[in-house]
Amino acid sequence: MKITVPTLVLDEVRCRRNIHRMVTKAAEAGLVFRPHAKTHQSHTVGQWFREAGVSRITVSSLSMARYFADDGWQDITVAFPVNILEIDTINDLVQRIERLHLVVENSESIAFLAGAAAAPVTLWIKIDAGYHRTGIPAADTAAIDQLIADIQSAEHLRMGGFLAHAGHSYQARNTEEIAAIHEQYLQELFQLRQHYADHPEWQISVGDTPTCSRMDQFGVANEIRPGNFVFYDLTQHFISSCTLDDIAVAIACPIVALHPEREEIILYGGGVHFAKDVLDHPDWGKCYGLAVERTGHSWGAPIPGVYLKKLSQEHGTLHAPRAFIDQQNIGDLVYVLPVHSCMAANLYAEYQLTEGQRIKRFV
Amino acid sequence: MKITVPTLVLDEVRCRRNIHRMVTKAAEAGLVFRPHAKTHQSHTVGQWFREAGVSRITVSSLSMARYFADDGWQDITVAFPVNILEIDTINDLVQRIERLHLVVENSESIAFLAGAAAAPVTLWIKIDAGYHRTGIPAADTAAIDQLIADIQSAEHLRMGGFLAHAGHSYQARNTEEIAAIHEQYLQELFQLRQHYADHPEWQISVGDTPTCSRMDQFGVANEIRPGNFVFYDLTQHFISSCTLDDIAVAIACPIVALHPEREEIILYGGGVHFAKDVLDHPDWGKCYGLAVERTGHSWGAPIPGVYLKKLSQEHGTLHAPRAFIDQQNIGDLVYVLPVHSCMAANLYAEYQLTEGQRIKRFV
Repeated sequence: MKITVPTLVLDEVRCRRNIHRMVTKAAEAGLVFRPHAKTHQSHTVGQWFREAGVSRITVSSLSMARYFADDGWQDITVAFPVNILEIDTINDLVQRIERLHLVVENSESIAFLAGAAAAPVTLWIKIDAGYHRTGIPAADTAAIDQLIADIQSAEHLRMGGFLAHAGHSYQARNTEEIAAIHEQYLQELFQLRQHYADHPEWQISVGDTPTCSRMDQFGVANEIRPGNFVFYDLTQHFISSCTLDDIAVAIACPIVALHPEREEIILYGGGVHFAKDVLDHPDWGKCYGLAVERTGHSWGAPIPGVYLKKLSQEHGTLHAPRAFIDQQNIGDLVYVLPVHSCMAANLYAEYQLTEGQRIKRFV
Repeated sequence: MKITVPTLVLDEVRCRRNIHRMVTKAAEAGLVFRPHAKTHQSHTVGQWFREAGVSRITVSSLSMARYFADDGWQDITVAFPVNILEIDTINDLVQRIERLHLVVENSESIAFLAGAAAAPVTLWIKIDAGYHRTGIPAADTAAIDQLIADIQSAEHLRMGGFLAHAGHSYQARNTEEIAAIHEQYLQELFQLRQHYADHPEWQISVGDTPTCSRMDQFGVANEIRPGNFVFYDLTQHFISSCTLDDIAVAIACPIVALHPEREEIILYGGGVHFAKDVLDHPDWGKCYGLAVERTGHSWGAPIPGVYLKKLSQEHGTLHAPRAFIDQQNIGDLVYVLPVHSCMAANLYAEYQLTEGQRIKRFV
């Protein structure tokens, strides 16, 4: 379809390449691969994973779990501390799909589920392996023992294992820094594994995009669940998780004003199209996106010196050298790589493939 | 309806009070009031404006214009440099509503519309009155003369006037700073008015929430079009545009984890529910929202020391004193005032009124 408004364009070739690479890595490391769908949130992209042999999925909300259950996914992990207010959705899911995995980190939630779950549900204990967002510290085995006892005493609950997210890998800026974080959290999980050596059936699940992209060995982990890698973005490029050419989404924005005298172009494309995530670029300061060259239906390398310097609700201010501006016309489209593809994709009800077809997102 | 997931709650009493106050101010100053709908994006809230006597509206996109035209609005300004790629929507609108106002700032767009507009359309020249986002500098009358000539030579185009947005008022932090910016841009517009004294029929439209909230006289302006004031938010409070009690929206978030040892609560409520706008709070540093006390169906004052310190996609990390955390349970709701209500509201397909009814937003 012809693009007339800000549109998230998805390059299927790059996306399937990202999927294939991660499927291969998980297989070679002997890991269960349960990709996180919170980035793409799309039945179509989920189908591309299925075509690559994937049958398990991770989501970030119970409503997203229902969306993927509607498309036939039977083995779903909701990687977020369970929201007990959504018990009706939980009970809908446990009766419709083969295996629902929920994440717990306190006795209150477990006691609630013990009384309210209508069918068997597998619980994973959320472990804080150094990110310190939430979860039980890996070394706090007294607290973990208590949660395990709570789970084991309930009829419909079963202990699935331990789930961690090394989100502090997003602070890394090169492979060495990613490797150091990878070693640190895997060491904590190794101690946990040793402590529960009598229960090898309890699985360990990890998986953030930086470590899953750059590391090959995952120690005691049994499963990885990265999500962002399916699209990647400028943040991942600055972490060194991916090349710019791996980024599978760009936002196509119409030019509505040209200001050559101050080296700026105004795009129809603002905070409601990119989200407000920002990078601190070494040369430019705040950067909300990088413009790329058009190549056929897709895009290529960044255009030197052309970047989003400011966003308001619908306006994007693109900094550009005057020579570039002189070649542009009102109504031309500029393709811009986003800073954070998860947050940007979440703003669109549908994506457009580079070949022109529209695909729907969960809304 | 019972709230089970992050929900934008709208207090109709506060919202109608904000509307009434601005309607009164515009009437007392003898100004046309054309409120911007980009914050609420809702037929229901639009109806509240109609009930207060408002018949003209401002929107930020052509698709939003169509949404309000569908609800019977007949006089709509799209306060964004016209996107010529949407000519089909423009021609749909000009044939359906009594008066469509578009904003232009270059000859290319005017020439395109001259050739393509199917019925009369009123054009406003976008004036840069000091914000420097986009538009023609008010003093550049040579460029403005050219645009006027372009408009006047086209059959379906008519010159409506000059439209400015003093967005630099968002840098203010008290009434004196707002007043200084107000005086500055009105002085620029006064010169413009003098220059075109032979055309008193050309109107001058201004209107950002800070100046419209705190100032009473609008010099040569004929029309104001503030938007955010309908909900207000923490940003406006820090600018001094409103009291905390004027803020008409809060985001209700379920508690999913308690971490008293580090004075943190994990909410189901992240960047996809609040957007990523952030305030630099004098005491706390980064602040993504303020928790407020529940009072009946609505809310009251902020809870001392309880604020959102971090957001990821679905997680919100609330800082809270231990005494507060000890009174909370998993599954309780916390109401949080947002930093930027326009960006937050844009993330919801519907809002819930404090009395329980759900109302739809433009999606």
